[in-house]
Amino acid sequence: MNQKKITTREEDFSQWYLDVIEAADLAEHAPVRGCMIIKPYGYAIWENIQKILDLEFKKLGIENAYFPLLIPEVFMTKEAEHIEGFAPELATVTHVGTEKLPENYVIRPTSETIIYDAFSRWVKSYRDLPVLANQWCNVMRWELRPRLFLRTSEFLWQEGHTVHRTEQEAEEFSRKMLEVYKTFQEEIMATPVIAGEKTASERFAGAKRTYTVEAMMQDGKAVQNGTSHFFGTTFASHFGVEFLDSDNKLKNPSTTSWGVSTRMIGSLIMVHSDDKGLVLPPKIAPIQVVIIPVLLGKNDEQILKKAKEVQANLIAQSLSVKLDTSDRRPGEKIFSWEKKGVPVRIEIGPKDLENNMAVVTRRDTSEKITISLNELNSKTIDLLDDIQVNLFQRASNYRDEKIVEVNNWDEFKKEISAGKFVIAAYDGTVETEKAIKDELKVTTRCIPFNLDQSNLPEKCIYSGKKAVVKVIFGKSY
Amino acid sequence: MNQKKITTREEDFSQWYLDVIEAADLAEHAPVRGCMIIKPYGYAIWENIQKILDLEFKKLGIENAYFPLLIPEVFMTKEAEHIEGFAPELATVTHVGTEKLPENYVIRPTSETIIYDAFSRWVKSYRDLPVLANQWCNVMRWELRPRLFLRTSEFLWQEGHTVHRTEQEAEEFSRKMLEVYKTFQEEIMATPVIAGEKTASERFAGAKRTYTVEAMMQDGKAVQNGTSHFFGTTFASHFGVEFLDSDNKLKNPSTTSWGVSTRMIGSLIMVHSDDKGLVLPPKIAPIQVVIIPVLLGKNDEQILKKAKEVQANLIAQSLSVKLDTSDRRPGEKIFSWEKKGVPVRIEIGPKDLENNMAVVTRRDTSEKITISLNELNSKTIDLLDDIQVNLFQRASNYRDEKIVEVNNWDEFKKEISAGKFVIAAYDGTVETEKAIKDELKVTTRCIPFNLDQSNLPEKCIYSGKKAVVKVIFGKSY
Repeated sequence: MNQKKITTREEDFSQWYLDVIEAADLAEHAPVRGCMIIKPYGYAIWENIQKILDLEFKKLGIENAYFPLLIPEVFMTKEAEHIEGFAPELATVTHVGTEKLPENYVIRPTSETIIYDAFSRWVKSYRDLPVLANQWCNVMRWELRPRLFLRTSEFLWQEGHTVHRTEQEAEEFSRKMLEVYKTFQEEIMATPVIAGEKTASERFAGAKRTYTVEAMMQDGKAVQNGTSHFFGTTFASHFGVEFLDSDNKLKNPSTTSWGVSTRMIGSLIMVHSDDKGLVLPPKIAPIQVVIIPVLLGKNDEQILKKAKEVQANLIAQSLSVKLDTSDRRPGEKIFSWEKKGVPVRIEIGPKDLENNMAVVTRRDTSEKITISLNELNSKTIDLLDDIQVNLFQRASNYRDEKIVEVNNWDEFKKEISAGKFVIAAYDGTVETEKAIKDELKVTTRCIPFNLDQSNLPEKCIYSGKKAVVKVIFGKSY
Repeated sequence: MNQKKITTREEDFSQWYLDVIEAADLAEHAPVRGCMIIKPYGYAIWENIQKILDLEFKKLGIENAYFPLLIPEVFMTKEAEHIEGFAPELATVTHVGTEKLPENYVIRPTSETIIYDAFSRWVKSYRDLPVLANQWCNVMRWELRPRLFLRTSEFLWQEGHTVHRTEQEAEEFSRKMLEVYKTFQEEIMATPVIAGEKTASERFAGAKRTYTVEAMMQDGKAVQNGTSHFFGTTFASHFGVEFLDSDNKLKNPSTTSWGVSTRMIGSLIMVHSDDKGLVLPPKIAPIQVVIIPVLLGKNDEQILKKAKEVQANLIAQSLSVKLDTSDRRPGEKIFSWEKKGVPVRIEIGPKDLENNMAVVTRRDTSEKITISLNELNSKTIDLLDDIQVNLFQRASNYRDEKIVEVNNWDEFKKEISAGKFVIAAYDGTVETEKAIKDELKVTTRCIPFNLDQSNLPEKCIYSGKKAVVKVIFGKSY
């Protein structure tokens, strides 16, 4: 077991992040450039994410399918912006065994091209629409500055791809999926997110519109936790997807794609965790409650029996409960489960047994309470609910304090260097975005849906040219 | 919708197989050499397989994780037999974008090498054992003669990898996992399988023992539906996996691996389906019951209302039920769901409504029965149970009739050409297996666990040398 001290957030936020991952045993670097191994405890978080989101997808009539890992290189070049966006990151298969292949294949960085090729066979008539498909899979975008979960050459994700009869229906669907992601972040991950539209230079390669949900980490930086793209008829026409409409005319349908990835786990860590290690919201935690029998050689058997009873009762309430019967010392156990972010810890020792009580500690606040064993079931459920709410509230308060609207460039620079999200008016040009990025390493996060644009200043914060919209700027992962 | 006639099994079994896949809309060839696209209805079968097996794994304490898609080429060469077995099938990544990589990577054909490298970091002490890990993922073995589901360059599978303190524990675990596969095949897939050990030349590259479950298709050929390998300490020592035992000595642990893949769907099709299309056992069917409202312009609304009520009642019994409200004619609907192998079809028309009845058809026998709407819930459940049992029985009878024990080479040839599994005595040499394979395209399927070896003939059926064991021979996919 790793007993290394966790660097504090204050000391070095980047190192703290890596220390938390190691201490909680979530993932490690693989002996393959930029790739990671997701260890069982980290993967269990991903399984919970999959289970919950997949159910939401299925409620909307979305069906899972599986498309090939490899994409003929020539497919990638059919949409000019698309290939330009991905070319430098494409891992390319040129050989099988010692034989050179007749054509090169790239490992999918995303699957629009190979899926649209299939859609061109599947879609013939308006009766075939909409097509609502999704796949859970691995993708690869070669990464020179890897960071566990946040940026890895290979990552796991889901990518949804839909085909619609009209532009309006497609656009509405892409917004609906963003709403699914927002609700998931807020209700399950306890992470407040800002939903909005990306500016032109932050759009997905080839998209007409990209919608995003952006979260703030505890260092004030942003993580993009999910995106949903509206393509209009662009991709459909490049890949020859056509349908005969009820008016007997051949038309290109409109399409969308949307995805979330293992990167969300990186955000989850950086939003909630503390200097003691991982902190997990109860609704996503692989283990919601850990029971530690404090065995000191006195009434050990009775304590163990009671602990098993408590576990069985909590499991019967559909909770995920671990009873730690390992031969480690109680202090070691406490320390280890704390680092793993288990929301509620229940300790039962000889004295507790005598008094028919247990000592219950919540991970979010470290508060200890004594609860009668008779009330443990209902109080644990209340506590978990309370932790879920508290984590969301805490993250919301933190974030809200760190968003500020500014009206001049000096203020902008000052607030950015203080680690804040900054709202400012902007001239809508790619040049201005690029200049700000070059100067401050700051990018536009999005044009928030719920931001009041009626009081738009006259001039762009940077260029002084006519402003067209207020956007949120921030540093990002 | 595809209205193409399905080739009969008698006419051309291979074409029948492809026609059934197309008619049921399960999968299609991808524009990538040897790869397939698994369409939503086919993928839904895979999702059911995953759900059921994953639960069994978790009951045994097996945890899921995720290891990289790419493996450094040099890793593959660490175990001589292993690389020899896989070298010609390895898709190799040499470039990213236009840049040549400093080292080549292969796309995993299986993950022993990269996982054992991780195990060498994870395992230090006997307290870390056993490690019971599994991953659900894609793998690639380049395929020159692809066949949907059965042999594709990329396929989906699970691969379990375990590390144990002793050889005996590892060996027992590999047998236990084979038992999980056997039970799954027989109870869920309604497919009788022969469990046994592979002969030396059919072993997994690098394994000490390979166990297998073999099923017979309706053309008398075999499909290997799952394998479990015992490695002893071989792989552990090649990859430097060592642990400090309680006696303070450094030892190599013993390991196992075991897997099943999308190939099982190919077997499922060829075991149960008929000339009308796909036939699915209820326990694996994505849709267990389809309800077809026969709308002829008379009492349509009442019929639809009743059909919805029937659907809701059956769903409340945890059944997966589709109500077909599309605007196709009733005959078209019946034909289409028959091809998709839905176990039970319920039709409700104007006359049925008057009589408070429904016409219920079982897919396995095409038998039609009339059931009172009041009894529909319980009778449908009984019917599904009965179909599950009947499919297993039918497949068992078919297979049992086609296994024969022979005592001389002429009989052997005759029975093999009649499409049977043949039990015969064999001298245990790789040369004899190769000679038989070259002459008749027949391989050893396994040494069945439950085969009486006490009456072993003196001589090998082929070489005439001293026989060492009786094995099952057969043609295979």
